[in-house]
Amino acid sequence: MAKSPPLTSQTEDFPRWYQDVVAKAELAENGPVRGTMVIRPYGYAIWEAMQQEVDARIKAAGAQNAYFPMFIPMSYLEKESAHVEGFSPELAIVTHGGGKELEEPAVVRPTSETIINASFSKWVQSYRDLPLLINQWSNVVRWEMRPRVFLRTSEFLWQEGHTAHATQADAATYALRILTDVYQDFMVNVLAIPVLSGLKSPAESFPGAIRSLCCEAMMRDGKALQMATSHELGQNFSRMFDISYSDQDGKLVNVWQTSWGCSTRMVGGLIMAHGDDKGLVVPPKLAPTQVVIQIVRDGEGVTEAAEALKRNLTDDQIVGQIDVQKDDQRGTVEASKILIDNKTSVSFGRRSTDWEIKGIPIRVELGPRDVEEGVGILVRRDTSEKTPVPLQELPQKISATLQIQQQDMLAKASMRLEDHTSQTTTLEEATEQAQEGFARIPWKTLGVDGEASLAAKGVSVRCLLREDNTTPATLDEPNLIAVVGRAY
Amino acid sequence: MAKSPPLTSQTEDFPRWYQDVVAKAELAENGPVRGTMVIRPYGYAIWEAMQQEVDARIKAAGAQNAYFPMFIPMSYLEKESAHVEGFSPELAIVTHGGGKELEEPAVVRPTSETIINASFSKWVQSYRDLPLLINQWSNVVRWEMRPRVFLRTSEFLWQEGHTAHATQADAATYALRILTDVYQDFMVNVLAIPVLSGLKSPAESFPGAIRSLCCEAMMRDGKALQMATSHELGQNFSRMFDISYSDQDGKLVNVWQTSWGCSTRMVGGLIMAHGDDKGLVVPPKLAPTQVVIQIVRDGEGVTEAAEALKRNLTDDQIVGQIDVQKDDQRGTVEASKILIDNKTSVSFGRRSTDWEIKGIPIRVELGPRDVEEGVGILVRRDTSEKTPVPLQELPQKISATLQIQQQDMLAKASMRLEDHTSQTTTLEEATEQAQEGFARIPWKTLGVDGEASLAAKGVSVRCLLREDNTTPATLDEPNLIAVVGRAY
Repeated sequence: MAKSPPLTSQTEDFPRWYQDVVAKAELAENGPVRGTMVIRPYGYAIWEAMQQEVDARIKAAGAQNAYFPMFIPMSYLEKESAHVEGFSPELAIVTHGGGKELEEPAVVRPTSETIINASFSKWVQSYRDLPLLINQWSNVVRWEMRPRVFLRTSEFLWQEGHTAHATQADAATYALRILTDVYQDFMVNVLAIPVLSGLKSPAESFPGAIRSLCCEAMMRDGKALQMATSHELGQNFSRMFDISYSDQDGKLVNVWQTSWGCSTRMVGGLIMAHGDDKGLVVPPKLAPTQVVIQIVRDGEGVTEAAEALKRNLTDDQIVGQIDVQKDDQRGTVEASKILIDNKTSVSFGRRSTDWEIKGIPIRVELGPRDVEEGVGILVRRDTSEKTPVPLQELPQKISATLQIQQQDMLAKASMRLEDHTSQTTTLEEATEQAQEGFARIPWKTLGVDGEASLAAKGVSVRCLLREDNTTPATLDEPNLIAVVGRAY
Repeated sequence: MAKSPPLTSQTEDFPRWYQDVVAKAELAENGPVRGTMVIRPYGYAIWEAMQQEVDARIKAAGAQNAYFPMFIPMSYLEKESAHVEGFSPELAIVTHGGGKELEEPAVVRPTSETIINASFSKWVQSYRDLPLLINQWSNVVRWEMRPRVFLRTSEFLWQEGHTAHATQADAATYALRILTDVYQDFMVNVLAIPVLSGLKSPAESFPGAIRSLCCEAMMRDGKALQMATSHELGQNFSRMFDISYSDQDGKLVNVWQTSWGCSTRMVGGLIMAHGDDKGLVVPPKLAPTQVVIQIVRDGEGVTEAAEALKRNLTDDQIVGQIDVQKDDQRGTVEASKILIDNKTSVSFGRRSTDWEIKGIPIRVELGPRDVEEGVGILVRRDTSEKTPVPLQELPQKISATLQIQQQDMLAKASMRLEDHTSQTTTLEEATEQAQEGFARIPWKTLGVDGEASLAAKGVSVRCLLREDNTTPATLDEPNLIAVVGRAY
């Protein structure tokens, strides 16, 4: 059973380990057009779970989903030249449709900022129409020269929120609310990934924004991944697209806006934040499959025991049952999240390895001898801990373990973030520390010039925080701390 | 209050009525690139409700969601020339990406048949890999010369399922299962739209299929709308894309396939199957908002009464509460599906009209006098029936009414379908009856030649059924009935 490991180890070659996990866990593969990806069922189930959690939080924040066309007239993008400069080599252009050349080429949306704002200018008339809070789930295209599945692909899936508010203060409050109540809450409490929620430096901000907020996470190789952004756009777009409202005195005022997004990139973040040499490790709250009941080999009563366990796990009446999907702690594990693996024609070792690669939180090994002894072997994916548990205690034990595992994964990732973050006082020190993880350095020590010299060494300012790690309201706040590191 | 009606009447001009409803109910509007549409939040909420219901049924049928790239190499489409002939003037072509002309142009998917089959040929190796059941939710593009919001747009949203099976019988069973357990069940039991589930005639079949199944519905103007299709593809694509498995004897065999889909077109179907001169009528099981508690004007205790009613409606403890969203009849109406309209600065009449246009199943009118008398006026959208109901009885009454309304809408639509369907025996008779609705005529009387002569008069064979209205297995069955009509 001790064959050569199916994956490259993280220490040997982290990028290759990543590619191995993506392939062997059957998450995704390259599409035929360069830079595109096929998201396979297991990878898509993870993305669907992310969508569901993020979507519920977006709706709780009052935004409504809508859908805007994927094709944008070229002239729309020319309106916002400052913005388009950043995109133009990334654009995919449709020149032919209906069997002939188009009069005006259409751009495949790299983002829907322009087309959504064109609608906003029609929809917003009076202060009564505000705030206007819109979100869209869709595919977008930005041509990638150096694609990498989930992290940088020419086509990816995301949500983009666009809002219009009566005042700058309202917009600022909402941009921060989305950052903390939607993104940070989801990442910390569902993905079990601690994030730094801060301001982007001017150089790292979205060109169309007056302020960019972000959630930054640390991967297991010490590099940073930007997991989501939320921008205050000021009146930049509302002036460009003429989005104004008549206030209570009948005066015309341009709206104040925000935009915010997260994407399939988060799947890459999940892989790299929790994965180990055995593969993916999925936190229980996100896991499409939480428990695999793995039949070791056929034998008397084994199938019956497996089915009874599945039934008991999903039975409303079991005392102590905890649904890790629900915040209110009632209910049970969903039946669809429990799988019985009875493919005993494939070797037990091979199957175990496959479930490990896929990062299923809990495996329960169940063989004829176990059933005879009245136990199942509970195996935690995150710690590899193996515990024989009497069959009648398994449902409660599994529920409790899923909860503990969720907490432990966050605790472990938080400790890793802390261990690989250093306080530094000079540029040299920060550059050196950034090779291992993140370095904290006073923003006034670093400044715009320091940032430029870090960039030359492949190190960037990930975000600016207050000393107590809370999110600053503006770049003008005193004593800001820059967190610097290498990034994906 | 008796101003000119906000909508064109159906009898006056049905197409204009449709456009009026789409605009005034704030469902959608035209996008800037010809043929594209902006789906507004209310329209999108209806689509989301459809998606959720269809998706649950697809998963129950064992299929898994995945995502394939939107850009397809031109060469893929050339592989299936018979198929591409039908599409080529409809294709949108990307010629530029990454700031330069592409070596091979990419096609924006008109359907994902080719790119999914390219993956299938890698994923299917052994009989153990079958059946392979994949579904995708996405946008697709087919350039439209005569676009019409929801019914025919250059870009639309849909799901497309693609499956591979070991035998023809398995494929046939699955294509029919999707038609009945997914589409028909959803349309009848959620949309409250009766459908004819039959076989397409050879002329109306998908060129790549050996048999095409469909669900056809009748709109209120007597015309047909194809609501969904399910195809048996035989081995047409598996030979083209080399999708084969080694059977238990190690022999290589091409798989047998199906594909099936439904789209945002169903929103158009919903509008035209149930809508009336006051606007949209949404069946309770689908409705994003099931109940509007409409405050007539401010007054003592009115807001409190409205909030108490909303609380009571969503309270788990209320006896007799029925959740029309759940099949098990337990639980309550979801809080997010109840809205309190307290915008008393806008006239009561104007607000009532707006809720009617949006087709909200139940309005509860609540004013100071009502509260004093301890009643609320329950107004059913489908019948316009107004009933004063004691406040404490309202929750039970509303729940019961939602259920009844769901049943009544289906009954009414079924009666309309029956009333507008005639038995005919000659081509002339069938042509004439098809002006008012559907005509049934023996397929052996009609035949391929009769079908062609109907086509010249704008009448087409919607589907072929057995005499008892069940779905035939093949076109070779004796005594098939052709249902003919005008169609969208």
